This record gives sequence, C-alpha cells and structure tokens, in this order.
Amino acid sequence: MTLTSTRNQSAPGLTPDADATRVAVSTVIFTLRRREGADRASIALPLVRRMRDPHAGQWALPGGWLDIREGLDAAASRTLAETTGIAPSYLEQLYAFGAVDRSPTRVVSIVYWALIRPDEVVDSSDDNVEWFDADALPTLAFDHNQIVEYALWRLRNKVGYSRIAHGLLADEFTLAELREVYESILRRRLDPANFRRQVEGTGTLIPTDRFRTGSHRPARVYRFNPDVELADRGPLDVRH
Amino acid sequence: MTLTSTRNQSAPGLTPDADATRVAVSTVIFTLRRREGADRASIALPLVRRMRDPHAGQWALPGGWLDIREGLDAAASRTLAETTGIAPSYLEQLYAFGAVDRSPTRVVSIVYWALIRPDEVVDSSDDNVEWFDADALPTLAFDHNQIVEYALWRLRNKVGYSRIAHGLLADEFTLAELREVYESILRRRLDPANFRRQVEGTGTLIPTDRFRTGSHRPARVYRFNPDVELADRGPLDVRH
Repeated sequence: MTLTSTRNQSAPGLTPDADATRVAVSTVIFTLRRREGADRASIALPLVRRMRDPHAGQWALPGGWLDIREGLDAAASRTLAETTGIAPSYLEQLYAFGAVDRSPTRVVSIVYWALIRPDEVVDSSDDNVEWFDADALPTLAFDHNQIVEYALWRLRNKVGYSRIAHGLLADEFTLAELREVYESILRRRLDPANFRRQVEGTGTLIPTDRFRTGSHRPARVYRFNPDVELADRGPLDVRH
Repeated sequence: MTLTSTRNQSAPGLTPDADATRVAVSTVIFTLRRREGADRASIALPLVRRMRDPHAGQWALPGGWLDIREGLDAAASRTLAETTGIAPSYLEQLYAFGAVDRSPTRVVSIVYWALIRPDEVVDSSDDNVEWFDADALPTLAFDHNQIVEYALWRLRNKVGYSRIAHGLLADEFTLAELREVYESILRRRLDPANFRRQVEGTGTLIPTDRFRTGSHRPARVYRFNPDVELADRGPLDVRH
C-alpha cells in the first residue's frame, strides 16, 4: 500500500507537485585569472558545491529558485550574491535551458552571465565556493557543463571585443594586458605588432601620458574611449 | 464569506496555485509582405485573438503553456502549429520575459522567433489569426508589444544580414528583391548601385544565367552561396 501510494505521488501529472514546472536562475561569471607559473591568463568562473540532492557534493553554477515576487534579473542578482558575495553592476540574460531530463523534477533555468575584472573577484571564505579555470572544469551538476560551454561559445562569438575586454580589464591597461585578454578568449597567441595596429585603428582606445615600468621596457598605459558605445542593450535596457 | 474566500485564494503565496510560477512559450514569426498599393514591402507577423481572460478579445503572439513532458523548443513549435498552422524549419530562442506584473498570475514566457519566406505563410481560414504589419500593431495582450519591439531590434542588429535575407526570400531572387528585404528591415531606402557593389563583394551570392523580365529591363537572378555559413547555432545546435 505504501509503495503504491508513493509511486502514485511521484508519477508525473498526478499530483500538483509533480505537475509543476519550477523556474530557477543560474549565473555564469567570467573573469581573467593568471595562476602561479602559468604562461598565460585564462578564463575562470565561480562554482558552488551543492549541499543537497540532486547532485549533492558536486559543483554547480551559482543560482537558486525564482521567487514569485521578483523579476528574473533580480532573482539572478540575489542568488548570485547569496551564494558567492559577487555583485556585478550588470547581468545579461544568456539563455533559458529547459530540457525535460536536465533535472529529476522539471526545472527551467534562466541563465544570466557577466564579465568582471579580477579586482572585482570576491575571495569567499566559504569552502563551498571556488573559482575554476573554464578549460579544466570537473563534471558539474545537472547540465551545467553544457551551459558553461554555451557561454564560452557566446563569449568567443560576441560582437565587439572591446566591450568584452572592457568588462575584464581595469580602467587603465597596457596593450600587452589587452592582448592577453584577447588571447585567453580566443585561446591562441596573437602577433603583438599586428594586434597593436588593429586596436589602434578602432578608435576604442585613448593613450595616456603614463607608462608602466617593470622588468621589460616601459609600456604606455591606455584607457577605453567612453564615447564608444560598449553596451547597447537595446529596448530591454529598462529593467523588467 | 464567498468574497473573503475568493480573496484568500487569489492572494499570492496562500494557495499552491497562486504560488506556482507557470512557464509559457510564445513565438514571433516575421515575414515580408507587400500590401496592395504600398510602395515598399514591410515586416509582418501573425497574431492570434485571445478567446478568454486575461485580455479576452485582444491580439497576442501565438503561444501556450509548456507541457511538463516537452522541451522548450518543442513547446514553441507545437503551440505555433496549433494556433496558426505555421511550421518553420527552425525556431530560435529569443529571450525569457518574466516581469512580475506582466500577467495577473505569475508567468515566465520563453519567446522564440523565426523568419519565414512569403511562400511559407499559411493563410489561416480562422478569423482569429491575422497577419499585421510590425509598424502598425494594435495594443497587444500582456507585454507582447514590448516583445515584438525587442524582436525587431534584434532583427535590425543581427550579425549577418545575408542570413536574415535568406530566411525571408525565395531560393532565387533579383538584386532588387534582395535590396527590398534590407530596406524593410532597416526602414530606409538604399542606393541601388552602392547596394550592388556591397553584396557582390561579400561572396554570399551566386549569379545564375537566368534573367527575370517584366515591366522593367531584365534583371539577373541570383542564389545564395550554400558554402557560406548562414546559421551557426553554436553548441546548442543539438536540440534540447
């Protein structure tokens, strides 16, 4: 009797709970990180260890359930801050993932993403939050590996690399630092002379009169040109 | 007593029904249409008249509820076919709309879109389905005017106009027909000689040895070059 009753309750469509599709939000936060000894910077993202089933103990994207009284953007910001302490100035909607079998219950996840500068990274004291290189992820909970793969693809195809670099770099930077951003995204070396010619031709950079000195010869410091529109968000710029 | 009970049932958070966020799908289908007497073609889309509240009698985007046993893409195709009879070969996810106040109950709508050629348009015998010019829409149900506005913005900003034109044109076309597609999307006249130079330089067109004759001088017929990738859908190309 008990078995039958349990079966009925978990059969799809028979109980309100089983019938309900729930909406969750998750976020992919990319930054640039150079590990000790690594010869180039790489794209990194924060993950959160799951405390309960399904997938207890596995790493997952930061996120949580949509509250009935909050918009999608607000839910993404809230759950990201609650799990990681990160609060980017702007989260962009990436994609809605809704495959029937992506979770034991039916869950549609609205995924957001943002690029943050290394100085915006919050080093959590929580052992259950950790930054991973995007190229060396463990097996994540649910379809989160696939979600990260999609976000990386979008990052590499995004129109306007200046906007991307702007999201990952400090306000002032050298051409070598800017080139390093491009190299980590594109995952290949770029010729320094060609790179300099190309970015100087775009009008997106303003040279300052300062130079950075170090082990190499002094390198001029640049800023982004604020007159170049880096983030046209279109008619959805008004939050909703 | 009855009044109080009704109030309690509709108050957020007090009943399972009120607590549930439901997921719907909607679709924006764009095509090119030339109305009698109009001096240029315009972007048109099908709308469905709502039979019940909320917004009974108003026009809305084709759509419906997500079934718990179907993926998001499948739900979009099914509800589009059920309401309009239209079955595009490919629907692309556009955006998830989830503002708290967009419907009397909490509804998150995953919106899909597609471009179809005029010959793919199904003229429904149903009086409750009608094609409207995107520039002359009535006040639609819910936030559907805003959704169409966003879709039009994306259409105008989309990378790769050749892909868009390919979605709206027949397999063979003249340069004047191709220019008309661009003009309807951009909503401005283009210089025929400049336009010809630009598209001939892209490598996306293959001239045939056929000419179209009519009231004007014969115009060469072109095809799209199938070797040019018109629809890189990235790692999500495998449906889910």
